[in-house]
Amino acid sequence: MSERTSHPSQIIGGMFGLEDFRELPDQPLPYLQGKHILLTNARSGIRLLVEQLRPANVWMPSYLCSSMIQAVNPAVSRIRFYEVDYDLEIPSLEWLESVQAGDLVICIAYFGFPILSGLVNAAMERAAWVLEDNVQALLSLNHDPDAHFQLYSLRKFFGVPDGAILAATDPGFEFSSQLSPPPSRWWMQALNASLLRREFDRIGGERDWFRIANLVDSAAPLSPHRMSELSELILRYRIDYQSISARRIANYQTLLERLEHLALFPSLPGGVVPLGFPVRLADRDRVRQRLFDQQIYPPVHWDIRRYVPESFQSSHRLSRDILTLVCDQRYDEEDMCRTAAIVRGME
Amino acid sequence: MSERTSHPSQIIGGMFGLEDFRELPDQPLPYLQGKHILLTNARSGIRLLVEQLRPANVWMPSYLCSSMIQAVNPAVSRIRFYEVDYDLEIPSLEWLESVQAGDLVICIAYFGFPILSGLVNAAMERAAWVLEDNVQALLSLNHDPDAHFQLYSLRKFFGVPDGAILAATDPGFEFSSQLSPPPSRWWMQALNASLLRREFDRIGGERDWFRIANLVDSAAPLSPHRMSELSELILRYRIDYQSISARRIANYQTLLERLEHLALFPSLPGGVVPLGFPVRLADRDRVRQRLFDQQIYPPVHWDIRRYVPESFQSSHRLSRDILTLVCDQRYDEEDMCRTAAIVRGME
Repeated sequence: MSERTSHPSQIIGGMFGLEDFRELPDQPLPYLQGKHILLTNARSGIRLLVEQLRPANVWMPSYLCSSMIQAVNPAVSRIRFYEVDYDLEIPSLEWLESVQAGDLVICIAYFGFPILSGLVNAAMERAAWVLEDNVQALLSLNHDPDAHFQLYSLRKFFGVPDGAILAATDPGFEFSSQLSPPPSRWWMQALNASLLRREFDRIGGERDWFRIANLVDSAAPLSPHRMSELSELILRYRIDYQSISARRIANYQTLLERLEHLALFPSLPGGVVPLGFPVRLADRDRVRQRLFDQQIYPPVHWDIRRYVPESFQSSHRLSRDILTLVCDQRYDEEDMCRTAAIVRGME
Repeated sequence: MSERTSHPSQIIGGMFGLEDFRELPDQPLPYLQGKHILLTNARSGIRLLVEQLRPANVWMPSYLCSSMIQAVNPAVSRIRFYEVDYDLEIPSLEWLESVQAGDLVICIAYFGFPILSGLVNAAMERAAWVLEDNVQALLSLNHDPDAHFQLYSLRKFFGVPDGAILAATDPGFEFSSQLSPPPSRWWMQALNASLLRREFDRIGGERDWFRIANLVDSAAPLSPHRMSELSELILRYRIDYQSISARRIANYQTLLERLEHLALFPSLPGGVVPLGFPVRLADRDRVRQRLFDQQIYPPVHWDIRRYVPESFQSSHRLSRDILTLVCDQRYDEEDMCRTAAIVRGME
């Protein structure tokens, strides 16, 4: 059932290497059932939607990735924030009273966990468009069926050089864009990083993939391009979704048994396939460095200092304390126990 | 100047591993200047041309690859052979008198060497279409400018999962086909073989790529499909044509200094970039086995027993004696000397 390869992992964390091309049976792809377009990346999905809907305001939670902000053309729409607290919950819906007809409200399914029940319908009562951002929730099964749009990203869940999906709930909705292929040179660098990481996982050696992946990320196109042929084929034919989901869930449970007191999400509802295992730590940077020293590389989602107003104090506090422990399908119970032991040893 | 990687070669010969994605300057691509279509493989280029031109007869040399024969739909055209001798020369042009207007004449640029001068024009005087088959001559510079069509293949010259080019000399010629992408599952197996060979070259280990490449080859589509996006990008941006050509020419010269008496082509004209170094050996199979024992894998181009009429005795004799020594850009002078020493040691 495990997706883990027979090769020992060189490190824990970091980007995924390019997928294997073993024969797999056809996989059900729930997010490709309805109306959708296949894109190079998620940020360009937001860009595309904003350009097409032209909302006066785009409402975003106060805890988010900078790429979402970059995606909004300030000549088209104004970004408005609504509050998300230290538990990633929405403490009040008062802000909805300022939402105007035709605005776009974005809700994030953080780390694979469902968005606040009722929020979508409340926003729709204001005649707003609603986008459920499932960039961290590709494999989760509990998406809100009422949101007008869903946005998914592939790279955080398996090894592809690019890939995102923007889906519309209304089968009559027409996406207006004619999409060109991903920019050639950018895309080949993205593939290069995937290949080098794949080979690093098998052989070890240089970590060029890290430097290249950072370059690729910072140069990612904002304007909409279609998903590469290679990523689409991997998406359709080469991902064992059930095994990946099961492994992530099992790893999350292993961490939860050992680190429940630190968990941002201390229970795992049915249907959730987690991106990682976010914890909150008073001495986050020291713990992170200690994990780095052990070749374990948990990311920070996100350092929001540069782009979220300081008035959202709970979000900034969370951003200082949060650390996403790695629990994806490349790793097994032993890796999780080792991670948890290091974190507990620092308490 | 050398294209050889810094990793030691595990073996000499066999398919190319997937190319690296280092940054390269833009490359001149002479065969993409004019009217052309990008295809999955060369055999489907012949298929496409035959379906479009619908010649009563397709004239092919008596020394050729079986895939060319498979490409011709017998419901459309009849295959006629013209003689090619033990030196791969055309001993007589008498057969041209049987060529009818609208027939298709195919000339092969064997191993990268030019076709018989004047043949194209002689066939055109019969109002025939002429295709110069450059499947073995992708990098050679001395193509016949008068042939109506040129056919190229990528896989024999560098590491791509698929790829061929069919070009027309007349810019007004319109290829009629609407091309779909390569068949998904077949193509992913082709990519798998390329990736596994790439990794074998770096790590060694299992030779699964060999088995998979054979499966891929035998299941290659005959009906025309377009070149994959990945192969097209490699073709356009990731091949250092000058270095590859220089390395192949230098390797050929190294072999020629040591094995001139066995060479099918005892001199290398300017502009020729050889596919390999074909020799003729009385005890071909014994020499080949000895090279196999030393991890050197020269192919036989071709075993024509099953598909060329027995009356072409010189071609059959050549097919029994020929062996293509490997001299491509993955290998250097030392590899060539080692190959030559084994062959000479058997004399």
